Amino acid sequence: MENELISTEQIEKLIDSKNVKELRHVFEVVPEIDIAEACADLEDVKKIVFILKTVKSEYTAEFFTDLPAEVKEEVIKCLSDDQLSEILESQFTDDIVDDLEELPANVVSRVLRNVPKEKRASINRLLNYKEDSAGSIMTTEFVVLLDDVTCDEAIRLIRKTGKNKETIYTVFVMDRQRNLVGTVDLDDLIFADGEKPITEIMNKDFNTVNVNDDQEDVANVVKRYDLNAVAVLNNDGRLVGIVTVDDVMDVIEEEQTEDISKLQMVTPLEDSYLQTSTFSMVKKCVPWIIVLLILGTFSSLVLSRFEARLNALPILAAFIPVIMDTGGNAGGQTIALMIRGLALQEFSPKEFWKIIRKEALSALIIALFIGVFGFIWFSLEQYTGIVSIDNASIWAGNCWTADFAIKTFKTSGLVAGTLSIAIFLSKMVAVVLPMGAAAIKKDPAIVSQPLLTTIVDVSSLVIYFSIAALLFSI
Amino acid sequence: MENELISTEQIEKLIDSKNVKELRHVFEVVPEIDIAEACADLEDVKKIVFILKTVKSEYTAEFFTDLPAEVKEEVIKCLSDDQLSEILESQFTDDIVDDLEELPANVVSRVLRNVPKEKRASINRLLNYKEDSAGSIMTTEFVVLLDDVTCDEAIRLIRKTGKNKETIYTVFVMDRQRNLVGTVDLDDLIFADGEKPITEIMNKDFNTVNVNDDQEDVANVVKRYDLNAVAVLNNDGRLVGIVTVDDVMDVIEEEQTEDISKLQMVTPLEDSYLQTSTFSMVKKCVPWIIVLLILGTFSSLVLSRFEARLNALPILAAFIPVIMDTGGNAGGQTIALMIRGLALQEFSPKEFWKIIRKEALSALIIALFIGVFGFIWFSLEQYTGIVSIDNASIWAGNCWTADFAIKTFKTSGLVAGTLSIAIFLSKMVAVVLPMGAAAIKKDPAIVSQPLLTTIVDVSSLVIYFSIAALLFSI
Repeated sequence: MENELISTEQIEKLIDSKNVKELRHVFEVVPEIDIAEACADLEDVKKIVFILKTVKSEYTAEFFTDLPAEVKEEVIKCLSDDQLSEILESQFTDDIVDDLEELPANVVSRVLRNVPKEKRASINRLLNYKEDSAGSIMTTEFVVLLDDVTCDEAIRLIRKTGKNKETIYTVFVMDRQRNLVGTVDLDDLIFADGEKPITEIMNKDFNTVNVNDDQEDVANVVKRYDLNAVAVLNNDGRLVGIVTVDDVMDVIEEEQTEDISKLQMVTPLEDSYLQTSTFSMVKKCVPWIIVLLILGTFSSLVLSRFEARLNALPILAAFIPVIMDTGGNAGGQTIALMIRGLALQEFSPKEFWKIIRKEALSALIIALFIGVFGFIWFSLEQYTGIVSIDNASIWAGNCWTADFAIKTFKTSGLVAGTLSIAIFLSKMVAVVLPMGAAAIKKDPAIVSQPLLTTIVDVSSLVIYFSIAALLFSI
Repeated sequence: MENELISTEQIEKLIDSKNVKELRHVFEVVPEIDIAEACADLEDVKKIVFILKTVKSEYTAEFFTDLPAEVKEEVIKCLSDDQLSEILESQFTDDIVDDLEELPANVVSRVLRNVPKEKRASINRLLNYKEDSAGSIMTTEFVVLLDDVTCDEAIRLIRKTGKNKETIYTVFVMDRQRNLVGTVDLDDLIFADGEKPITEIMNKDFNTVNVNDDQEDVANVVKRYDLNAVAVLNNDGRLVGIVTVDDVMDVIEEEQTEDISKLQMVTPLEDSYLQTSTFSMVKKCVPWIIVLLILGTFSSLVLSRFEARLNALPILAAFIPVIMDTGGNAGGQTIALMIRGLALQEFSPKEFWKIIRKEALSALIIALFIGVFGFIWFSLEQYTGIVSIDNASIWAGNCWTADFAIKTFKTSGLVAGTLSIAIFLSKMVAVVLPMGAAAIKKDPAIVSQPLLTTIVDVSSLVIYFSIAALLFSI
């Protein structure tokens, strides 16, 4: 039977009628995350507690994990210590750690008190790793085999020890000195001749990450090598945890949200859009607007200094927005390419000169092309009177005089020329900023956009009015 | 042993010295994708052919898949039909299909001629699915069991039939009428009592996708339910393929690159940055710059119509960039939130009014806050002479006269007021555009940014000069 979605009303009805049998059946036919989402909207948290008490814990482990943090907090408050213990027993350490990071201090200490002893040490260790490091997302529940077993023995050992591990699809092989010497994929084990020593079928070309590696690097390893799980080693080279592919998908999603948010200058939301309060939305948007507003002072300063030139030739003002928008966005394109390339590790800051050369060449061609196109377009704009010098145009009844033609071409040349230079400059700055940020280990997405806008705005205004002064002797 | 990276020089030396034994060893200790990358830089494609001929095909299957398209093309040209056949035999159908989409027509027909017969039908079918649909990314190599087997029998059958399938971690259970009735995860099979019928341990709450579903929807299902593989059904509800988690990771990466690229107005690159030619880079950037340039005509038009007002009060020009940058970017923040929310299916276009109300409230608060902050900031700018009316400021030696104060406050009020309205408007437009695009099944990322810029630029200029006319009677 295919999965049928469940509504908050349906689940509430089952709870209210104390129909435990049907409730258990729901857990068999509906994915837990869907039930958790339906329950998140229940007004009385006691109803969720009822589920946790009546449905088998092997079903509700994932259900509990999938509840939103604020609901989880209320649920925990309603549980006895014994009940809480039982639920925590069925949870993976990395999920508990994720929860602890979101719960208030008094709930955290209650959880830690009721966590099974053997998990407590791991949890405390995991809590100490830096945010977004491999250590903070890894789980300590994995299967280890010694390197002197045969494939049949390996399967038997996995059956015996693998039950509560996060994955058995990749198991880790150690020698007697407890060094990691290989990984074994369960499918290779299944197909292997049972008598073979495990060392013959294990992958010796496996990858590992360090506990302090950034989670994005972990994601890149798992993705590049199509792994099901990657081993996490501590600084002594000992296996201390693993990161599985489903955790990596969450990391990828989180990192992507961050990159898009920062490029568009909003602090990434922690919850989903609909769950984020208006107040926290305001907090995530306002600082960036203020940064832009303050940085905008530079362009105001420059423009006000050129007031005299603007007065002498007011048509100049008409082209300022198009120069700024087009110039700034040309750089934005390059920033997108840089941020993506760096995130996917297509290149590193060490290849700076290679990238600069590549981008300079294409920027030059783009700038020249847009220069020529712009010259024609801006001439047309003036010729047709869309933007008019002295309100003159062929259609306004003025004749197409030599003087008018010269002025038109000069203006078009000025605007198109400035635009060309602005595009080239903008694309160059857009390489330097993210690459520079990455080189000094700063987030390339966060500094790039507002700085680029300001640098391009100010420099294109200066270029614009300087050329204007030369061309029109103003 | 941990994986050791290999350089192009090292592999070239091994090939040149015809050291087949060591070459085979390399394939045992270095991940194939790393070898493929090292080989991609070899100048003589015959050297890669040498590898394919001498190293066992079970090792080189993935190696061949990981070669860049242009290298693959050259390699195929150097292979005999028999050799090509042998390589294709070891490839998954979905990988062959991916290649065919990138290779020139003459190579495609040679590949199709040499593909093993049983694969040819699947490949032809896969090639017919719409780009970016579930059908186009699925593989037809999966394990099916009938629902009357026991767990032990299931494992035996998997051993027998699973060898060349893309995954055995999820197998699919059908009834006698060939309807999909469940999925079984290999770990559940491993832990289950061997005598149990498979129907007792299979997941009945499984998810499926349709062959015509967008690949992004497939990715969302796999991610949400932490699946290892999802079943793809045709319109008659028959199981025709599966999509595995590693393919989903590629989809996620591709879709993210697309979203970021489109938001920053550059057509997404198909290859990595360093592999993209200058010419194709230019092609991906130029159209968008031209769109902006042409759309910029509207703001030029508006500004040139307000020339008289600008002449009467030239200081107005100084604040145009800050209004445009800040107003436009405030909307950009909202666009980022919308694009991400839609991509992660946090909400759908049906929730338009809910989102509009939520965003309107926060936009209003942000606009008011920035209005107040802006008023103070712009007053300071003028008070200190950074931007000066009639070149006056307390430091320029002019006294702080009542007239000067009134003019300053009026200007600050004008700029801050326009900015407030622009921010509110911009954020509202930034909800409507992507949600509207999504509602009519268009890509929300692509239309939003240039249209937003233009709408905000033009309307804030009109508002600015209209208020200015009222305040200063110009």
